[in-house]
Amino acid sequence: MTERKLIPTRLPERISNDRAALDRLLDETLVGYLGLSLPEGPLVVPVSYARQGDRVLLHGSTGSPRMRSVAAGAQVCLTVAAVDAIEVARSATGTGMNFRSACLFGVCEVLDGAEKAVALETYVDRYLPGRSAEVRASTRREIAATMVLALPIKTWSMKVAQGFAEDSRADIAGPAWAGLVPLGLAIGEPIPSPDLRPATAVPGSVRAFLER
Amino acid sequence: MTERKLIPTRLPERISNDRAALDRLLDETLVGYLGLSLPEGPLVVPVSYARQGDRVLLHGSTGSPRMRSVAAGAQVCLTVAAVDAIEVARSATGTGMNFRSACLFGVCEVLDGAEKAVALETYVDRYLPGRSAEVRASTRREIAATMVLALPIKTWSMKVAQGFAEDSRADIAGPAWAGLVPLGLAIGEPIPSPDLRPATAVPGSVRAFLER
Repeated sequence: MTERKLIPTRLPERISNDRAALDRLLDETLVGYLGLSLPEGPLVVPVSYARQGDRVLLHGSTGSPRMRSVAAGAQVCLTVAAVDAIEVARSATGTGMNFRSACLFGVCEVLDGAEKAVALETYVDRYLPGRSAEVRASTRREIAATMVLALPIKTWSMKVAQGFAEDSRADIAGPAWAGLVPLGLAIGEPIPSPDLRPATAVPGSVRAFLER
Repeated sequence: MTERKLIPTRLPERISNDRAALDRLLDETLVGYLGLSLPEGPLVVPVSYARQGDRVLLHGSTGSPRMRSVAAGAQVCLTVAAVDAIEVARSATGTGMNFRSACLFGVCEVLDGAEKAVALETYVDRYLPGRSAEVRASTRREIAATMVLALPIKTWSMKVAQGFAEDSRADIAGPAWAGLVPLGLAIGEPIPSPDLRPATAVPGSVRAFLER
């Protein structure tokens, strides 16, 4: 996660051109970070998103000035990252992280009509597989209140840092421990809403999420 | 995580001014997202960081053009977010996330001398408590190769979305499930480095991380 990871001679970092690995990262990660260059300076906003083939869907309120500026063609950078492990080295400065990260650069397109309705289903189903079929259809008003944007997966970069720290021979001969501490997503037991009607079972979409 | 969360009449979203909550979020979250406005467009980079009182430490290679531009006084936005739950509503568009997120805006200061050496210890100890006392001191060369920057916690905003989805009465009367699926960080068992000397025990710093 640190700049020094970019020095490939020093640590097992690589720039990846693997589109399948990019798709896996995008599909696995729950939240992306959308960067905008505003007149007052850079802004980074956490966003949910959904990959749909060769593009990434984003959404937000039609009332948001930020969304409107993205819709109007502002350049964006969508960054996603997964931290897979803390990489414990035998020195302070050698310590880092195993991670996969990607930046998508470009301009978003506003979706409308049938394409927009399908995108909204893709969006919810990407988090809770099959959810759109378990709930009523979105109303025209709900669809109208939501802006759906698509960012093409065209200009992107990906970085992957994996493996153990590469300590010096002197450090390896020393007393310090080195290794990895694996990290991942913990998913807890579903908590029913207090206003849930009795005997409403946890649906297949939520069970599918629990099993990811 | 979505724009509609910003409409406080609709969902239990609030803009937080709670500095203690900001500190907790910064201290809990492993990775931040640093936004820069480059001439070619916005760039968002995942970064490790460490809070040190009223500032956030960042670091990177002295050889990185990006770090040098930040060191030269480029405006930055550091965003951190924790997703606490998937918020399952009885409609597709009502579905969202429970999250806490914060943006810190400003310009970084370059640290040097004793302050820099202390900052590097703070940095590693924030991930692995007490680690800097378990390993040898960083060499002058290691310290020189690393740039340490401090971003003041002065101009910031925080958003918190908690609680259950607020479905319509008609939806509540319907058959769909609603609730929360709690999310968190999963920490796995430490994996010793293949070149670890036999009988080197997992150190206190790593055990402290496992117990967080």
